[in-house]
Amino acid sequence: MPKSPVLTPRAQDFPRWYQDLINKAELAENGPVRGTMVIRPYAYALWERMQSEMDARIKATGAQNAYFPLFIPQSYLTREAEHVEGFAPELAVVTHGGGKELDEPVVVRPTSETIINEYFSKWVQSHRDLPLLINQWANVVRWELRPRIFLRTTEFLWQEGHTAHATQEDARAFAARIHREVYADFMVNVLGIDVVLGRKTARERFAGAINTLTLEGMMGDGKALQLGTSHELGTNFATAFGTRFLSREGRQEPVWQTSWGTTTRMIGALIMTHGDDDGLRVPPRLAAVQAVVMAIKGEEAVAEVHRVAEVLRAAGVRVQVDDRVDTPFGRRAVDWELRGVPARIEIGPRDLAEGTAMLARRIPGGKTPVRIDALAELLPGILEEDQATLLRQSREHRIARTTDVTTVEEAIEAATAGGWARIPWSVLGQEGEATLAEQAVSVRCLVAEDGSVPVADDAPGNVAVVARAY
Amino acid sequence: MPKSPVLTPRAQDFPRWYQDLINKAELAENGPVRGTMVIRPYAYALWERMQSEMDARIKATGAQNAYFPLFIPQSYLTREAEHVEGFAPELAVVTHGGGKELDEPVVVRPTSETIINEYFSKWVQSHRDLPLLINQWANVVRWELRPRIFLRTTEFLWQEGHTAHATQEDARAFAARIHREVYADFMVNVLGIDVVLGRKTARERFAGAINTLTLEGMMGDGKALQLGTSHELGTNFATAFGTRFLSREGRQEPVWQTSWGTTTRMIGALIMTHGDDDGLRVPPRLAAVQAVVMAIKGEEAVAEVHRVAEVLRAAGVRVQVDDRVDTPFGRRAVDWELRGVPARIEIGPRDLAEGTAMLARRIPGGKTPVRIDALAELLPGILEEDQATLLRQSREHRIARTTDVTTVEEAIEAATAGGWARIPWSVLGQEGEATLAEQAVSVRCLVAEDGSVPVADDAPGNVAVVARAY
Repeated sequence: MPKSPVLTPRAQDFPRWYQDLINKAELAENGPVRGTMVIRPYAYALWERMQSEMDARIKATGAQNAYFPLFIPQSYLTREAEHVEGFAPELAVVTHGGGKELDEPVVVRPTSETIINEYFSKWVQSHRDLPLLINQWANVVRWELRPRIFLRTTEFLWQEGHTAHATQEDARAFAARIHREVYADFMVNVLGIDVVLGRKTARERFAGAINTLTLEGMMGDGKALQLGTSHELGTNFATAFGTRFLSREGRQEPVWQTSWGTTTRMIGALIMTHGDDDGLRVPPRLAAVQAVVMAIKGEEAVAEVHRVAEVLRAAGVRVQVDDRVDTPFGRRAVDWELRGVPARIEIGPRDLAEGTAMLARRIPGGKTPVRIDALAELLPGILEEDQATLLRQSREHRIARTTDVTTVEEAIEAATAGGWARIPWSVLGQEGEATLAEQAVSVRCLVAEDGSVPVADDAPGNVAVVARAY
Repeated sequence: MPKSPVLTPRAQDFPRWYQDLINKAELAENGPVRGTMVIRPYAYALWERMQSEMDARIKATGAQNAYFPLFIPQSYLTREAEHVEGFAPELAVVTHGGGKELDEPVVVRPTSETIINEYFSKWVQSHRDLPLLINQWANVVRWELRPRIFLRTTEFLWQEGHTAHATQEDARAFAARIHREVYADFMVNVLGIDVVLGRKTARERFAGAINTLTLEGMMGDGKALQLGTSHELGTNFATAFGTRFLSREGRQEPVWQTSWGTTTRMIGALIMTHGDDDGLRVPPRLAAVQAVVMAIKGEEAVAEVHRVAEVLRAAGVRVQVDDRVDTPFGRRAVDWELRGVPARIEIGPRDLAEGTAMLARRIPGGKTPVRIDALAELLPGILEEDQATLLRQSREHRIARTTDVTTVEEAIEAATAGGWARIPWSVLGQEGEATLAEQAVSVRCLVAEDGSVPVADDAPGNVAVVARAY
């Protein structure tokens, strides 16, 4: 008997499937103020796991966490010309505080380059103070006209790194290190998303950057999603804010800077990369719950699931118990499928007698009986296998839906059909990029012929990866 | 030769000492918008340690983390009458977003009872959905007219717990559990602060609560600081927001709620409890850096401090290396004293030859030579001893500066002299409390005769703890 679908099938209506999944798996809800969101516990636990994995990688680069204020004087934003032009349309402005109209309105941070430079300019005096490597975990606000939960929200959570260096080479190397050792390593090896690493064109660069490195993932419908960016800011903000240092040679010079960020949008990427018609599938290395141990019915089964959970925890598996035997078993099983917990271990009275449990695997699918006393040994290997499966499927999907083309028309055709196109940048160029934009298609990034990240937009052999994007 | 003081001595000017310490130890700075603050890396690492210790205790109660929006429609605040009266004067109001004036202004959350109840009212249907136990780590904004860094800031970081229960008894027990098992356990056993647990009088209660439990610490100058509160909200918000459930008996009933919070103000408490004229003293269980291993000079010493650091890390000690041999040793030593790192291990060429290091202990003070190969075995015990010393000193200070009195005049005298007074609540009463207020003295909390937390304001034998407060 085929299951009646809990979600709108992806093939029928991908955006509706996405929204269905978020509702039914209780991941998030819209907030009362347009474009804001409530992140519910199961999704927030995924974010905490992302934070924990990312934070360790960020700290391994030598960066330290700090916290800068939410409120920025409006005048700060205007000091860097491109920056204010990029962000002015998205600002939320506080005009009243403590019952009075403010002398100068303050903006709710859309990003913190300006306020951080105000302090960097005090803290950096000499080359001995460099590099200065700071990261913060915070909320930011960008007023969204077309909000979509997790992907584009008026308020979102993120980490933003901000660094200052003595030389352009050092800044460039650090931006590249974050791009590869922090972001790509996390996204590929924890999120299981086969991101493409590249360089943004001038048109797509961050407002105020001289170079933006990006990580692009292909979602289930063939569209692209930018999962993170790492910027070289050159000396733009340093010049605007007077962030200068005394060099070894005794000269006052502006610092070279980077900034880099990843957001709760990664939860959306996770859903749209690994989700299927039954719900989410969470990569085991990320999962806050890697295995749920379910009692089907009966007091003995309830006691047994708690015992088994302890054994599995001792083996290093992140386990949740489901002993809600008053709730129909089928409904609970569907809920865990929706939430994408990799392993479901079902124990009922009959299993107990035989010393076995039913193991349902969410990622490859299917159910097999296993001996309860073998679970602790089996599970870690199964989870690693599932992790590899998700990454492989992500890679295969991207390759299958990517076409090499040689004309702008073909690129538009491939992108509007729901896939990515690869076209030589020498063929496309800024003019072709403008033509794409008329069809809501964009250059997601430039990659070098050998797949590496180009050192310049116009480096020979650069290929543009072209797609519709979220 | 007496050291020239780095900080204004506490006895000379306590508020200035506090500000000096924050500047010199590079803990924080004022933000550009009045009352906001920049939390610098060393202080932020203390906050991360607080978060980690608190979060584990919060999760052990069964509460789950989630995230609710920063922006709250202004109309929500007005639904609970006492609540809006309490918070209206402190609100920051966003009137413009995305370049347009908003139809309805939104407030930046001063606390989240209102927006959370909007969602609780959707999520709670039946007694099976209860208790609902939610916590969030977030920033909040309360416009401050007399800001003081860490203690009263326009924006601060905190955790706020929000729970819904089927019965008043269950809500009451949960508020008490947070008060004792989460907050008191953390403050006493990690922060090393000998807090007094009590109940707020009606005058001092949270706006919208029927009962507020508090933890009060005595600062170095004898003033009181409220370190955290846990509120019973009764059915006030549930009634205002329609948060109702179908009871076992089949009736629609409002839920009983709690809320509870602790903030970055705890960093201020830490400074003012354990700080001395040489700087901060960080309790080892809290410290992000428990021991710094310093190279005095020479390449061999630099190599050795890295080796020793690895050995100590393997022994479970949180260690930082200081190999900045180009910076004068004395200046570095003063910096580590200012920052209050419990153990300083100094290694120079002469020590190397003898296989010894100099161990400087920040908490009891003093320096002694120790064998380098004995450090890993010695340090954990030393750190536990230092932890106990700080708690003992906090307790002795509180006891020494607390006076039992029998009249309102004596209470005012004790409080204005820089201490706490204990006076029977039956003597003081609400009238006496109003008299205290005229002298900027307040009832910090009520405690029962046996030191426990009273079940009612007017329980026989209640004692009021009276002080000036931050």
